[in-house]
Amino acid sequence: MKAIEYKPIGIIHSPFQTPEETPIQPRAAGRAMGQLEVFAEYEQALADLERFSHIILIYHFHLTRERSLTVKPRHEDSRHGSLATRAAERPNPIGLSVVRLEAVDGANVIVTGIDVVDGTPLIDIKPFVPSVDQQYGANLGWLADRYDAG
Amino acid sequence: MKAIEYKPIGIIHSPFQTPEETPIQPRAAGRAMGQLEVFAEYEQALADLERFSHIILIYHFHLTRERSLTVKPRHEDSRHGSLATRAAERPNPIGLSVVRLEAVDGANVIVTGIDVVDGTPLIDIKPFVPSVDQQYGANLGWLADRYDAG
Repeated sequence: MKAIEYKPIGIIHSPFQTPEETPIQPRAAGRAMGQLEVFAEYEQALADLERFSHIILIYHFHLTRERSLTVKPRHEDSRHGSLATRAAERPNPIGLSVVRLEAVDGANVIVTGIDVVDGTPLIDIKPFVPSVDQQYGANLGWLADRYDAG
Repeated sequence: MKAIEYKPIGIIHSPFQTPEETPIQPRAAGRAMGQLEVFAEYEQALADLERFSHIILIYHFHLTRERSLTVKPRHEDSRHGSLATRAAERPNPIGLSVVRLEAVDGANVIVTGIDVVDGTPLIDIKPFVPSVDQQYGANLGWLADRYDAG
């Protein structure tokens, strides 16, 4: 099947210079502030975004060379299928984070709860829409083992 | 900035043959059943996925030719920046849906609440993890106008 080509629409700036110091997920990132530097040619596409409280970032794990089928996530003892994790080492190194939108100033978007490394290429921004993105009653999958194990 | 290349990891099969008959979002899709035909080379990456109740699908809007900066979503009267919508006509035509996981059988994944057109190339699957993907208190953005106008 044909390869798919996307162009970065901007760059994510964050306080984290290496993957090792980057929080694993937005909740762990707490109030860490990030700036999305959207390229000027896409500024118009941001119209009305500022009215949302949360947005979904889709980005490219540009530091990841491995495209693994199984991974051992940080803080885990066993391997899992990479598509059953959020790890960067996966068939297509695409990342997804839900962050809080603080402000839109021209082509600059300020967010908090950022959990990606500084310089990450941004591919897409989507509004977080509670009626379609919330899943009340969703379970924890294999992550529940951590809690079972006490 | 350099283009990014991804390879489809499978094909999404759904009851919807055209974009016009495809529900706009998973909730509207209700119990519509879909099958993710993951290519055999990626089957191992699905290990442990079956323990999650909900998964996030990332896919390519392959029927979309326009890469618009502003769009008028279906059922809307006014235009919005495409990055402030979930429309297919956006800078990079990437789609995202959260669906319910019913079963994993080898490289076939059965889901319900599917809202994509039959034959859509699948790029990534991620587990939906409540502690990072739920955003209690998220607002409706410009979508709230519909209800205000109600």
